[in-house]
Amino acid sequence: MTDRIARADLRSKVMSAADAAALIHHGQTVGMSGFTGSGYPKAVPMALAARIEDEHAAGRPMRVKVWTGASTGPELDGALAKADGIELRLPYNSDPIARERINKGEMDYLDMHLSQVAPMAWQGFLGPLDVAVVEVTAIRPDGSLVPSSSVGNNKTWLDRADKVILEVNAWQNPALEGMHDIYYGTALPPARVPIPLVRPDDRIGQATLQCDPAKIVAIVETDAPDRNLPFTAPDASALKIADHIIEFLSHEVAKGRLPASLLPLQSGVGNIANAVLTGLVNGPFDDLTAYTEVIQDGMLDLIDAGKLRVASATAFSLSPEAAERINAEMARYASRMILRPQEISNHPELIRRLGCIAMNGLIEADIYGNVNSTCVMGSRIQNGIGGSGDFARNAYVSIFMTPSTAKGGAISAIVPQAAHVDHIMQDVAVLVTEQGLADMRGLTPRKRAALVIENCAHPMYRDALRDYYDRAYHGSYGRHAPSLPSEALSWHQRFIDTGTMLPG
Amino acid sequence: MTDRIARADLRSKVMSAADAAALIHHGQTVGMSGFTGSGYPKAVPMALAARIEDEHAAGRPMRVKVWTGASTGPELDGALAKADGIELRLPYNSDPIARERINKGEMDYLDMHLSQVAPMAWQGFLGPLDVAVVEVTAIRPDGSLVPSSSVGNNKTWLDRADKVILEVNAWQNPALEGMHDIYYGTALPPARVPIPLVRPDDRIGQATLQCDPAKIVAIVETDAPDRNLPFTAPDASALKIADHIIEFLSHEVAKGRLPASLLPLQSGVGNIANAVLTGLVNGPFDDLTAYTEVIQDGMLDLIDAGKLRVASATAFSLSPEAAERINAEMARYASRMILRPQEISNHPELIRRLGCIAMNGLIEADIYGNVNSTCVMGSRIQNGIGGSGDFARNAYVSIFMTPSTAKGGAISAIVPQAAHVDHIMQDVAVLVTEQGLADMRGLTPRKRAALVIENCAHPMYRDALRDYYDRAYHGSYGRHAPSLPSEALSWHQRFIDTGTMLPG
Repeated sequence: MTDRIARADLRSKVMSAADAAALIHHGQTVGMSGFTGSGYPKAVPMALAARIEDEHAAGRPMRVKVWTGASTGPELDGALAKADGIELRLPYNSDPIARERINKGEMDYLDMHLSQVAPMAWQGFLGPLDVAVVEVTAIRPDGSLVPSSSVGNNKTWLDRADKVILEVNAWQNPALEGMHDIYYGTALPPARVPIPLVRPDDRIGQATLQCDPAKIVAIVETDAPDRNLPFTAPDASALKIADHIIEFLSHEVAKGRLPASLLPLQSGVGNIANAVLTGLVNGPFDDLTAYTEVIQDGMLDLIDAGKLRVASATAFSLSPEAAERINAEMARYASRMILRPQEISNHPELIRRLGCIAMNGLIEADIYGNVNSTCVMGSRIQNGIGGSGDFARNAYVSIFMTPSTAKGGAISAIVPQAAHVDHIMQDVAVLVTEQGLADMRGLTPRKRAALVIENCAHPMYRDALRDYYDRAYHGSYGRHAPSLPSEALSWHQRFIDTGTMLPG
Repeated sequence: MTDRIARADLRSKVMSAADAAALIHHGQTVGMSGFTGSGYPKAVPMALAARIEDEHAAGRPMRVKVWTGASTGPELDGALAKADGIELRLPYNSDPIARERINKGEMDYLDMHLSQVAPMAWQGFLGPLDVAVVEVTAIRPDGSLVPSSSVGNNKTWLDRADKVILEVNAWQNPALEGMHDIYYGTALPPARVPIPLVRPDDRIGQATLQCDPAKIVAIVETDAPDRNLPFTAPDASALKIADHIIEFLSHEVAKGRLPASLLPLQSGVGNIANAVLTGLVNGPFDDLTAYTEVIQDGMLDLIDAGKLRVASATAFSLSPEAAERINAEMARYASRMILRPQEISNHPELIRRLGCIAMNGLIEADIYGNVNSTCVMGSRIQNGIGGSGDFARNAYVSIFMTPSTAKGGAISAIVPQAAHVDHIMQDVAVLVTEQGLADMRGLTPRKRAALVIENCAHPMYRDALRDYYDRAYHGSYGRHAPSLPSEALSWHQRFIDTGTMLPG
């Protein structure tokens, strides 16, 4: 079993997950690997959850602070949240049990820009990092670590933590070695220098992670798959959104405002984002590149179709089927993929330099194009802001996309005023629903409102939005971005009270 | 008079402001110099305004689109807005007449991140730039232009415009020559490269602006001062805010989280920002630097006190007294100042690399630390977002500061929910009023709310905020960031209805 632990003196650290979990104590901060269901530790968190349950059963308190790359799998967030073992979670979560605890006020959640997690951990105000729990593919003879299917904040956790627990996962394909690009040139100011990346396919670092062997207190061997969710086949709405976006991009190329091979694509996580990628398989663009957070199913299709030259990301976010597909032909795919630390995949400096075309989902947008990505009805966290802020503000073109309604029409994705704002109108260039696309670039708030209502809102909400805007225009305190404070959030209140935003 | 026009063949282009203004036509887009009342053209805009009034009197339509660096002077925005001559204004305005027209719905206003104006002008969707009207200090024998007291977007206007009108202002001190650093290395993606600036005092460009002489259609000679507003002496509230900030910075140095000479300071425009700078004169920090938008009075004091090594900005924003002071000793000050294009002074890449300490004002913040910088009661534009977004998101520490009340107590600067959001809570680390300082770094929304209410809100509003938060916590749809949509903006509606946010 230990042939993946090639540094001999570390083999003595191999132990059970339960023994490793016993090295983590109440009140500690634990930095775990994991980004969108890839590369998270699978054994130690479950053993830790079991231990926490035992402690609680014995009447003893035990909770830890959990830092990760982004979302993880049920064996980590699900198990620990179920055990009520998480005091604080950052920077992103999509686990339903953890979400419920956060929204009940039982668990603290710090929703952060993904690019800022590593630098802020170095900055110090988040407190010390006691333990790192990091999944790797293998340990090389020199002690360097071959990363697994996500990089996330692993470099920072390994550097910052007092103690390190490694999970060596035999399920991860050894051919991952060489795919990663770990940049060790970051620093705190005033010692920061330019990041020397000018193309999505530039390699600026090394293929492995470094870790002081003296800090490694435990190694746990696992053989367990990443558990990403399956992608559902795109529905009619997602296909229409994809069509609108491809038509827009074609128009921009025709106008000479985008190169024929576009600019590096960023694509948020999810089914609609994946539908757009799949749509590009039959689209008119060649020699595409991606500079993004996650490599999704659609990117494999683009690579297979000879359309995508390279995809740079920090993690895979593949359906079980696609994970099998890539695992079977890792060597072929590996030459077209680079996984980097998330402070690099999401770095504002690089996103602006490369001029990414950002495509992200949303919960709701208001008529002026302010976007709520995180809080349903303004208060209930869904997942988190993730990298959407890193990309949207610095993109060459920032596109947000959503079906025009949710919950069978009971929720309009276009509202008079967003109940919570994650992306201000300046950072939202294009808004797309299955109804159509609003290119808001260069438009003032009043003109944005007209376009968003006519092009993006669902017909069943369009009249009510027109009515609100007209009355706001005539009754507003100022007419730069007309609003009626007493009514601006009434659609949300109506949904809370009656279960639908539609007037009774 | 023409000794400032050292290139002989350009002297034939000298004409009156009225003749130059006649070269600008209805419907055209005009890119003008000017940033916070410095370096804006003083003669041609007034002549243009007179011409527009004549045209209107004759029953003919005439309006232009006006692009600038930021705010300008009454001779530009005031005169043109009074004449109803502006169809669209971008990216920032502080002129009261223009503001009134925008808020009446009579004039379009595009409120932009200041770092993005030049790249977006190149990107093309804003449309063509017909004429540039740029104030300069002098024209050198080779035709290169010595910039005046602001740089703003002048490089881009000169490069992009079909025709160029120059104002050569004899009031501007010839000793300005050499102070500027004009970087010509920007490009559109995929040709963008790292910007080679790693210290606030690095010079990465050239001292002058280039301009194709064939595009110069008019040169107008002027001798008129920049018209910045006087700074009022800091009141008790501003002094308390300054004290809180200096105490916080001292604490961070003591904790080892900031170097002893801090990190490059960014300071927004205004009296409170200036009070903080003045407070630093007697503060414990030496060898300071500034990487900011504007050089204000307080920075001269810091230079005189031997505390400020260098100030990098895109413009002066000096009181008439300070402008006289600097003009009298320009050579001495010039070695400690650098003026750059605003796409460089405000570039996210550079702000994050340098790790600026950002200090900006606001209109209101909500209990979670979301900040409204632009829209009074959510709809009435005050000035604009300016560079606050460029700095706040990328700063090492993002500080926002305000008196806790406005209009004699009728408005609370701390509200249940911001009526408009420019800076999301992730970009607001520290909130300061005269009541105290809330260090919100690493805190979840619920903990932010407790701190903001107790430390920052005015006592006359504190109970009402506590009461709102408590009821929101118990009645909220989700408890991540508790809110009551039906009540969240009620303070704003009460102010609109009754003239005060205080309950009757």
